[in-house]
Amino acid sequence: MEEIKILEATLRETVESCLADNRYVQIRNLLQDMNHVDIEALLAELAPDKTLRIFRMLPKEIAAEVFAEMDSDMQQYIIESITDSEVVRIMDEMYMDDTVDFIEEMPANVVKRVLRNTDEATRKTINQLLRYPEDSAGSLMTTEYVDLKKAMTAGEALEHIRKTGVDKETINNCYVVSVRQELEGVVSIRTLILSAPDTKVADLMDTQVKCICTLDDQERSVYLFRKYDLLSMPVVDQENRLVGIITIDDVMDVMEQENTEDFHKMAAITPSEAPYLKTGVFTLAKNRVMWLMVLMISATFTGFIIRHFEGALGKMVVLTTYIPMLMGTAGNAGAQSSTMIIRSLALNELEFSDLLKVIWKEFRVGATTAALLTIVNFARIILFDQVTLWVAVTVCLSLFCIVCLAKVVGGMLPILAERIHLDPVLMASPIITTILDALSLLIYFELATSILGIA
Amino acid sequence: MEEIKILEATLRETVESCLADNRYVQIRNLLQDMNHVDIEALLAELAPDKTLRIFRMLPKEIAAEVFAEMDSDMQQYIIESITDSEVVRIMDEMYMDDTVDFIEEMPANVVKRVLRNTDEATRKTINQLLRYPEDSAGSLMTTEYVDLKKAMTAGEALEHIRKTGVDKETINNCYVVSVRQELEGVVSIRTLILSAPDTKVADLMDTQVKCICTLDDQERSVYLFRKYDLLSMPVVDQENRLVGIITIDDVMDVMEQENTEDFHKMAAITPSEAPYLKTGVFTLAKNRVMWLMVLMISATFTGFIIRHFEGALGKMVVLTTYIPMLMGTAGNAGAQSSTMIIRSLALNELEFSDLLKVIWKEFRVGATTAALLTIVNFARIILFDQVTLWVAVTVCLSLFCIVCLAKVVGGMLPILAERIHLDPVLMASPIITTILDALSLLIYFELATSILGIA
Repeated sequence: MEEIKILEATLRETVESCLADNRYVQIRNLLQDMNHVDIEALLAELAPDKTLRIFRMLPKEIAAEVFAEMDSDMQQYIIESITDSEVVRIMDEMYMDDTVDFIEEMPANVVKRVLRNTDEATRKTINQLLRYPEDSAGSLMTTEYVDLKKAMTAGEALEHIRKTGVDKETINNCYVVSVRQELEGVVSIRTLILSAPDTKVADLMDTQVKCICTLDDQERSVYLFRKYDLLSMPVVDQENRLVGIITIDDVMDVMEQENTEDFHKMAAITPSEAPYLKTGVFTLAKNRVMWLMVLMISATFTGFIIRHFEGALGKMVVLTTYIPMLMGTAGNAGAQSSTMIIRSLALNELEFSDLLKVIWKEFRVGATTAALLTIVNFARIILFDQVTLWVAVTVCLSLFCIVCLAKVVGGMLPILAERIHLDPVLMASPIITTILDALSLLIYFELATSILGIA
Repeated sequence: MEEIKILEATLRETVESCLADNRYVQIRNLLQDMNHVDIEALLAELAPDKTLRIFRMLPKEIAAEVFAEMDSDMQQYIIESITDSEVVRIMDEMYMDDTVDFIEEMPANVVKRVLRNTDEATRKTINQLLRYPEDSAGSLMTTEYVDLKKAMTAGEALEHIRKTGVDKETINNCYVVSVRQELEGVVSIRTLILSAPDTKVADLMDTQVKCICTLDDQERSVYLFRKYDLLSMPVVDQENRLVGIITIDDVMDVMEQENTEDFHKMAAITPSEAPYLKTGVFTLAKNRVMWLMVLMISATFTGFIIRHFEGALGKMVVLTTYIPMLMGTAGNAGAQSSTMIIRSLALNELEFSDLLKVIWKEFRVGATTAALLTIVNFARIILFDQVTLWVAVTVCLSLFCIVCLAKVVGGMLPILAERIHLDPVLMASPIITTILDALSLLIYFELATSILGIA
């Protein structure tokens, strides 16, 4: 990774010095063999005016690909700096899903200018795609797919692909539709090539197509792509008419995005899509403060419990020293269980009917770990702390009960949450910890007052 | 999802009743149109002997695909129940990466039997693939790829693919190699089809191939697939000779697996690959108890701090009631920051040189959230708690300092961990919380003794 950094820095310097001396041919030669992702990475490091100068040198297909990779600030700057005919060229080359992603981020005046420079049909498609709800399959799809008819032969199908394929996002899977555009089957380019040219598409196609509806949640597409190892999937409307396809590159992005969301939610942060360094201080604070506030106020209940037992604590202040250890261990034990269960739910490995199995398993795991922790803790207290045997017994018995309880509660709550259609991630460590803090203290103080006879 | 469950149950019942009456033709008709993933899901719900009976009815290509999807217990049962010639048929049809995954899980006697039933060349390849370290690109790759020569024309290349493509895992990307098997370029089936048949492959191929070395970490393949939107990637040995390819379905699995690992590590669990319900109680306990023990013992330091200030606390027991709230808020605030930073590091959005930027940003986010939390908390204490103004001031000032500190520590530690080549995930909420518990108490008690004049 270090070497790549150095190479990139060298390349950037070379390009900048070429720009300074107007050695355009040399720049063009440099860029010629580069991947569009790498060109975008290079441009992102340059000043906007230099980016623009280089961008205008790119051949139109590459320009469109580089443009689709750019962040929206740079896209806006470019659109505002180039001529109408250049806008037309880029829009013509971009795939519809990238176009829509780009337009969604632009201010109204830029959107107007872009739409003015696209033809009637494209404008209609864009407007239609913009109407799909965020996170729906429709908002993820593109409209550039290969469609075939059942009556074609493999040879005719390949000929059709040769004629129309250049503008399609993928030709690896071709979709067979009826005259009314209803989805009838799928046939891969592999099958078409490996079959005898006179075989009918009807005999080659797979009629059990895994497809998704425009309004389905995009998470469902992640699930289907993973389950069936798909490269692309057709999207149909309510009348089963093919309206677009989703490709795997977009699904991978959704997958990482959903995972990031889960990580953030599990740390009690309102999720946001923007990368950390591009998010302002105020937004970051806003995304975090709400949950901190809720948790802080919940924690005051724990304070009430302590206050309730203030008399007992006053008589035996040494009990206070074990509070952080007990609360910490409860929180950690519960977080382990809830995290495992939340993740299993996300991967569809668990469902509500497994609830009892999970509770029983967590109870046994809890008892096993609790036993070990209790033994170690008892030895530590007896050896190092100057307390009576009965204090040690109280602390250890509390520890045992608390860990068992934490495991069961941590395993149970995410499943119950999903049952009542709440996001199971809500039951991640911050909430679990807060609940368990209160429960642990109750157990600890109840045991202390009965065993040690203080009140 | 509920409907799917019902459909699956109906299908299972139908198959079982057909089996009972030996209506094999009907079963065959039922299975004919089903995806291999769905067939495997159906078989997994049946008793092993019924699974075996149905498995033996499947055509050999489908049988191999279904077999590759099965869990290793079922694979072992099947191999031990079928004849040698049936073993040969399955092994012939399976892709090399699935074969190796399967063999890795089998006991020695099954491995012996399988290897005895494969030809010399396959056996050599299997042994070679088995030698790659776990989690390396080599262990992920398959050896069934299409290789072309530069001198071929597009038409000749397509002809070559027609002849050899049926056994390849993918034909979407074909790799161009020299006579010494060195990787020279990549050309997609799309390019071959859309180009004039007499164009030379040398003129069509992309020489800037993104490739990976056999010994590279599989995480690097996830990074490259996502960055460049790849469908497959060539794997080369140290002499740049093509030895295999990695396909995107395997990369998606690695991606989810790495994410699961990160989720588990962030909850202080030793990660394991097996699904929750298939993992035994003892293994689950073992994976969890180590970290719980470490954290429990660390938490005793927090106990020492309390003990050190026992005198002060004894004079003003009310201070104890705020300990859970302060420790909880510190832990939550720190976990928010560390989680965001850990995730950004995993997605390569951050690196060590951003450390100062992160610290400064977290300090400002910390101050903003801390200010809000402090105001709310001050109001709550004054309105509801019967404490003196100075106690309220002590608690609120502590809260402010603690939240700011938590944010900076939480943001800083994962980056520092990565710098010294530790997994940043180690700095997730359990460790951060334990560290912050101790720091918060120190701050709280120091402020309490100076402001309230107790000691």
